[in-house]
Amino acid sequence: MLGAIEAGGTKFVCAVGTEDGKIIERIQIDTLTPEQTMPEVIGFFQKYEIDALGIGSFGPVDIDKNSETYGNITSTPKRGWANFPFVKTMEEALNVPIEFNTDVNAAALGEMMHGAARGVDSCLYITVGTGIGGGAVVQGKMLQGLSHPEMGHILVRRHPEDSFIGACPYHQDCLEGMAAGPAIEKRWGKKGHQLQDNEKVWEIESYYLAQALMQYIVIVSPKKIIMGGGVMKQAQLFPLVHQQVKELLNGYVPLPQVTERIEDYIVAPGLGDDAGITGALMLAKQALEAAK
Amino acid sequence: MLGAIEAGGTKFVCAVGTEDGKIIERIQIDTLTPEQTMPEVIGFFQKYEIDALGIGSFGPVDIDKNSETYGNITSTPKRGWANFPFVKTMEEALNVPIEFNTDVNAAALGEMMHGAARGVDSCLYITVGTGIGGGAVVQGKMLQGLSHPEMGHILVRRHPEDSFIGACPYHQDCLEGMAAGPAIEKRWGKKGHQLQDNEKVWEIESYYLAQALMQYIVIVSPKKIIMGGGVMKQAQLFPLVHQQVKELLNGYVPLPQVTERIEDYIVAPGLGDDAGITGALMLAKQALEAAK
Repeated sequence: MLGAIEAGGTKFVCAVGTEDGKIIERIQIDTLTPEQTMPEVIGFFQKYEIDALGIGSFGPVDIDKNSETYGNITSTPKRGWANFPFVKTMEEALNVPIEFNTDVNAAALGEMMHGAARGVDSCLYITVGTGIGGGAVVQGKMLQGLSHPEMGHILVRRHPEDSFIGACPYHQDCLEGMAAGPAIEKRWGKKGHQLQDNEKVWEIESYYLAQALMQYIVIVSPKKIIMGGGVMKQAQLFPLVHQQVKELLNGYVPLPQVTERIEDYIVAPGLGDDAGITGALMLAKQALEAAK
Repeated sequence: MLGAIEAGGTKFVCAVGTEDGKIIERIQIDTLTPEQTMPEVIGFFQKYEIDALGIGSFGPVDIDKNSETYGNITSTPKRGWANFPFVKTMEEALNVPIEFNTDVNAAALGEMMHGAARGVDSCLYITVGTGIGGGAVVQGKMLQGLSHPEMGHILVRRHPEDSFIGACPYHQDCLEGMAAGPAIEKRWGKKGHQLQDNEKVWEIESYYLAQALMQYIVIVSPKKIIMGGGVMKQAQLFPLVHQQVKELLNGYVPLPQVTERIEDYIVAPGLGDDAGITGALMLAKQALEAAK
């Protein structure tokens, strides 16, 4: 039996499941402070005999195994979680091998192994919700360099009709500042799901998202792009994004995946809301294999 | 003995060298048509007994080994070279194992193995010259997905004092359209090296390059960024780029490499003008190892 945690900024999903990605049991726990949340998380796993644990966490996190602070959440503004030693805490409680990565890198892994990117060795997973995050699998491995990707914070060009100043505390009008859920709410005075019929909302939203995808495509050249998160539940966004990505690339990437079948290239998660937790289960599988 | 080709749009560099990256002999051949250029290229290698060949080529190229057109230059506007079967031509002439990639992926590999990125497993190599191209090594492997990266064509925000419309035939004012050598020449009516003392030229140039690096950093998180090519011979660009990248990131990537020692993070090629040909030699080494 494998254990999995998808640690988000508002809730933790904890699950146990199998090596082939099947979830057997799960619970959901509010993300309060570590002192409040972690005993419940640990209590859940202590009911099972798990052989390994995978964690996909909100970030920024330290995923460098050679670092002294490996396994920590690092500089989050979320009260109590900055410098929280996530891996260490779980190791001490459960004494099993652990793999640790970002929630979005885990989601990309989950989608590659059991979702929309099955059969290819590279994909991007973008979540558009309270924030915007991106993870990727490149040639079979989760993308990692100096640190993990922070794809939500790329620069975008302002839509000519958009005067919203932007909501990112670091970069003001970066992608997350212009296109995450809170930006939509601040710009229009309503939440996205209350604006479903307002075409201008989604034209502007897709304008920013398409720019981001263009950058991801020319830089990483993923074999599949998966877009999840609360904002992407507005399914009308997909055809708008497809159209604008094609226009922006303007034939420069002359691959049929982009020019002819873009609706199969930029897609919703095959695992629905379970991309992250399934990915965390696959991290547990990797932990088990590494420990053998 | 290993053979290496750095195939550029204006010249081919052909070399023979050793597995540890030492170049023994080299020649330079003008890039005319394949009928004119290739016999000279082949003739050079026939003088030696090479065991394998590495090719880093101008693109776009097909580097997907499962593709029917693997090893071809694909859609270049360069007369005679579109659909040129580069690998097949060299295999038939020399009958040795061949590795084939883009010139910039090869340069990134060369810099990682023998240049400025020695000791780390990931780096980006950007060339700013007649065009702008980028290659990368990620976790030890040259970046590849659906195709190779086309990093020169990312979108940038226009400098507020810049009215130049842009020179990219596909995207007009993308990075290459605004910041490659021909863009500088069209904007200012002179070539870059004639504009050395004009501060505004380099302020605008670094404004675009810094935006590009910000995107690369948040998306790929490379451990080292190497900037080569003719335009980067203007060494005054480096401090301007360092400053602007720090301002753009605004502390969001709180890693000392970026916040404290950016002059060691974004650097000139350790191999000078030999990054590409050394990388091609390392491709030959890979070809030899794969054939064993």
